[in-house]
Amino acid sequence: MGMVWGCVTDFFTYETTKSVVVKSWSVGIINRVVQVLIISYFVGWVFIHEKAYQSIDTAIESSVMTKVKGFGVHNNRVMDVADYVFPQQGAGVFCIMTKIIITENQFQDRCPELGRKFKCTTDADCTKHLGSVLSNGVITGVCIRPYNSTDGRCEIYGWCPAENDEVTIEPMLDVNNFTIFIKNSVRFPLFDVTRGNFPSKMTSDMIKRCNYDRETNPSCPIFRVGDVLKYTGQNISALADKGGEIGINIEWKCNLDLDIEKCVPRYSFTRLDAPFAKNAVSKGYNFRFAKYFKTENGTEFRTLHKAYAIRFDVMVTGKAGKFDTIPTLISLVAAFTSVGLGTVLCDIILLNFLKGADQYKAKKFEEVSSAQIEASLAQSPGSQLSLQPGIKSSYDSGAISLAASDQPI
Amino acid sequence: MGMVWGCVTDFFTYETTKSVVVKSWSVGIINRVVQVLIISYFVGWVFIHEKAYQSIDTAIESSVMTKVKGFGVHNNRVMDVADYVFPQQGAGVFCIMTKIIITENQFQDRCPELGRKFKCTTDADCTKHLGSVLSNGVITGVCIRPYNSTDGRCEIYGWCPAENDEVTIEPMLDVNNFTIFIKNSVRFPLFDVTRGNFPSKMTSDMIKRCNYDRETNPSCPIFRVGDVLKYTGQNISALADKGGEIGINIEWKCNLDLDIEKCVPRYSFTRLDAPFAKNAVSKGYNFRFAKYFKTENGTEFRTLHKAYAIRFDVMVTGKAGKFDTIPTLISLVAAFTSVGLGTVLCDIILLNFLKGADQYKAKKFEEVSSAQIEASLAQSPGSQLSLQPGIKSSYDSGAISLAASDQPI
Amino acid sequence: MGMVWGCVTDFFTYETTKSVVVKSWSVGIINRVVQVLIISYFVGWVFIHEKAYQSIDTAIESSVMTKVKGFGVHNNRVMDVADYVFPQQGAGVFCIMTKIIITENQFQDRCPELGRKFKCTTDADCTKHLGSVLSNGVITGVCIRPYNSTDGRCEIYGWCPAENDEVTIEPMLDVNNFTIFIKNSVRFPLFDVTRGNFPSKMTSDMIKRCNYDRETNPSCPIFRVGDVLKYTGQNISALADKGGEIGINIEWKCNLDLDIEKCVPRYSFTRLDAPFAKNAVSKGYNFRFAKYFKTENGTEFRTLHKAYAIRFDVMVTGKAGKFDTIPTLISLVAAFTSVGLGTVLCDIILLNFLKGADQYKAKKFEEVSSAQIEASLAQSPGSQLSLQPGIKSSYDSGAISLAASDQPI
Repeated sequence: MGMVWGCVTDFFTYETTKSVVVKSWSVGIINRVVQVLIISYFVGWVFIHEKAYQSIDTAIESSVMTKVKGFGVHNNRVMDVADYVFPQQGAGVFCIMTKIIITENQFQDRCPELGRKFKCTTDADCTKHLGSVLSNGVITGVCIRPYNSTDGRCEIYGWCPAENDEVTIEPMLDVNNFTIFIKNSVRFPLFDVTRGNFPSKMTSDMIKRCNYDRETNPSCPIFRVGDVLKYTGQNISALADKGGEIGINIEWKCNLDLDIEKCVPRYSFTRLDAPFAKNAVSKGYNFRFAKYFKTENGTEFRTLHKAYAIRFDVMVTGKAGKFDTIPTLISLVAAFTSVGLGTVLCDIILLNFLKGADQYKAKKFEEVSSAQIEASLAQSPGSQLSLQPGIKSSYDSGAISLAASDQPI
Repeated sequence: MGMVWGCVTDFFTYETTKSVVVKSWSVGIINRVVQVLIISYFVGWVFIHEKAYQSIDTAIESSVMTKVKGFGVHNNRVMDVADYVFPQQGAGVFCIMTKIIITENQFQDRCPELGRKFKCTTDADCTKHLGSVLSNGVITGVCIRPYNSTDGRCEIYGWCPAENDEVTIEPMLDVNNFTIFIKNSVRFPLFDVTRGNFPSKMTSDMIKRCNYDRETNPSCPIFRVGDVLKYTGQNISALADKGGEIGINIEWKCNLDLDIEKCVPRYSFTRLDAPFAKNAVSKGYNFRFAKYFKTENGTEFRTLHKAYAIRFDVMVTGKAGKFDTIPTLISLVAAFTSVGLGTVLCDIILLNFLKGADQYKAKKFEEVSSAQIEASLAQSPGSQLSLQPGIKSSYDSGAISLAASDQPI
Repeated sequence: MGMVWGCVTDFFTYETTKSVVVKSWSVGIINRVVQVLIISYFVGWVFIHEKAYQSIDTAIESSVMTKVKGFGVHNNRVMDVADYVFPQQGAGVFCIMTKIIITENQFQDRCPELGRKFKCTTDADCTKHLGSVLSNGVITGVCIRPYNSTDGRCEIYGWCPAENDEVTIEPMLDVNNFTIFIKNSVRFPLFDVTRGNFPSKMTSDMIKRCNYDRETNPSCPIFRVGDVLKYTGQNISALADKGGEIGINIEWKCNLDLDIEKCVPRYSFTRLDAPFAKNAVSKGYNFRFAKYFKTENGTEFRTLHKAYAIRFDVMVTGKAGKFDTIPTLISLVAAFTSVGLGTVLCDIILLNFLKGADQYKAKKFEEVSSAQIEASLAQSPGSQLSLQPGIKSSYDSGAISLAASDQPI
């Protein structure tokens, strides 16, 4: 019973480190200055700038709808949005075709390939192309040659006539005046906050008339293609001729501790395929698609389009922060812990460079060598108890070592 | 040689803080209570709830396939999946068209624009619309006016006749009974674990018959559109009329320390364009596309569709955790370190509020002032050595300051 | 004035822990060994392997363009890229159709359903199918039965004739030789670095000729479909027959402290729908789409395609790191702090298992009990001041407790 009570008494003790207080101006000032620096860092950077007191939601849910408007004239016809936008559903990634090379009335047939690469005089010139993927159809290995001419071409089997994509046609520069309407709604699931990219008080009239401008109209969701290209520093005629890829980045950075109306997006624009601009090869962006028709008697034929297009990628990134107790607590603990770091520097100065460093050392360090201990043990093997008897039981001390005596851990 | 040996001996020493053990019930209890609180926080929140002993993989690889089934009657024809789903390839983002305004047999031509906005009596009324993107074609600046009538309309050049999108037609409400089959496979690259969104033991029959229900059938991958709308609290007829955007979120949260069969997804549903619901403008979702045809003599014409659609975005998020030694170690270290934090509170109490606080202070703090040191130095300049001579060489002390004597860092 | 000066003097002091230096080989060696282990961990793992001195950008901006080339023969016609790739715009996700079941000349009409499931002898057999989504059109509830035959089929209303998707046709195995050209540009917004997935010095000729190979040609952006399937361990004929989903992962891991030219991607390939491979149901990947035509008199009809396809998902992941002072500082602080952790282990050994543990304990711990304090207070109530008078003002001590004396926090 008494033993149990002793254990309990031993348990409810408190250990704190024994400290040496150095009354010295030099090291005292250094100590405080270092502490002030550390506190400033935490207050200024960690708390105010980095907002370490907030919990952050980066798992943004976003949906983008786009709508292009405008008319262009290309290949002697007026093109509207149903003609030049692909895919048509108004997704976050869409292409505006700016130059289309049309090959009409292709039927499944055999015909001569086009282009110098497939020039031939005998069938042998063509068999070497067998299996080529650079032709307009399956190379049959036959050379088609007008009577007595040397200017033959290899025969292909597939959609005929073959496409001639080396014609020069003017791109549709009207694209410059097209407008893109972007409707972006985001949700921060952690805080269950949803936001749209334009103010809900905007009227139909305001939206129809406005044009995004970085300085004068940053909240308008209508973007003139010409303006977007200007912001990316691109040349419209080069881009319309070869095609390219433009990124429209919508960046949400919301501090939900403030008024929710201040949670608005910021737009930025980049040319996504910029790394390939210097390449000798594969500049621009194009793709092929076909429209299929049927003759009266049911034979299918098609019109092949090779479309050079500007592709727009609307990319949404964002995060939101809001005050939360747990991150605040963790940051405060980190701050308090770090304030103690000043001692590293001060100890080095105190124990090495200060006048009387050895005296300070003597005060700070208390020496005990195993030789002494052994000597004292040999001298009075029973005297152990005389040294503050019962200070701790052997087991308890270990436990407490983990828990309390070694707070420095 | 002896000096080297001395250095070696000095090096293999161990420094530990000197502690004051306070045998006081009040502060002892506070100390232990604070420690218990901190340990509970770490065990309960950090380890059990937050699973800090796991390494986490958030870089989920996901692929989604969808398949819609169902028939609807719209514009007096039966529509099947090839008619009303766009894009057709069964991607994670797809639209179900619910109302289509069809303008048939458009040819490239000149014709009058529709709508009051383009009313005119003289050409001057039309020149002000030049360059408009809100018309159905390029405004030519000419006013087309029946003889003696004042009700003229501006002429456009483009696809004629112009679309009249102000007709009232019934949306296809059959969409309510359509079903969406979602096949989602995810991979956690860090652990090389792949999972599908429905149990592999499900038979063809079970899948064909089941319908997802949050309570009774949460693992069925077939979703009735009507149910999805119900979960988002949306009204089918309003949505089918104006179009809208629904998010289907698939959330994977896997604890791979448990049975892999418990790694199953959770579905949730939101209306993504909710932030725009209050707007006066731009509610809903629609887009235009065209089908192209050719007359016998080869002239191209088209049927323009303005489609109001419900867009579904299947969004997959997830993370998986598995026991790992490094995060476990780091968390344990953090836990041990934090237990020492109790001393902050206890020291404040001990040194300020406890009876005999000044005595405790005297025990805890040992004072040394630069004045004393200087005095002792002046008195016996050579006496330095007498103060525990050779306790440390000046250089070594600095190094050890960094490494060992200042464990509190 | 003097009091203020006293406060100032008290403020500019420095507190450091009083330490016990144990000169014992055993615990000294353990101490240093533990410290060396901790330092090695930080240097080797945290700094060199994990590059904790870098700030990391994971918010990669990526754009992918793809282009497929090759010819295949299917249903007795040559298919080129405009025929078999969907969607056609060369996005990061695209399908190559490998087997197409074509149902030509479907008109809106009534006709018998196909398949045993819809066998009937009386209308009652069909009314039970009313509302089915597994038919090819709206079930009317009528049984169409040739005169005197029992082999009737339920009538449907919709696109007629009904599709028969149980025919056996050969998939287009030529897909094996198709090539996929992938153009991927990434941008690390934090460092404003953009990179392309192939070297800018590659010429048109090199690109046209090369084929990606993991060992011999890892920087070539042209991938033979057969090679991709080989890397994923898939069988071309099974995949082409049923369809499937292949992931092409482009992984960027860039150390921007090194030469920028070393920032190149690594490709890997997986079968994304692998989790469903074991399922009894819903293997593979297919979708339906239609081509629309008009008869001379303006009636629309269509050709329905059920396309089995291999879907390719190009997924880009990546991160870049670059030296930065703040993460370096934080990691250094963490390293210094952790070095002190060795004392936990050493204290347990020193105070429990070492010869003379109790002597060490007596040296390390200094005891003060509330009984002693109270006794001394009772004895000389005024003697408080005699105990190092003015060592600290009560308030100051608390503040300093937080800030300096309790570095262990």
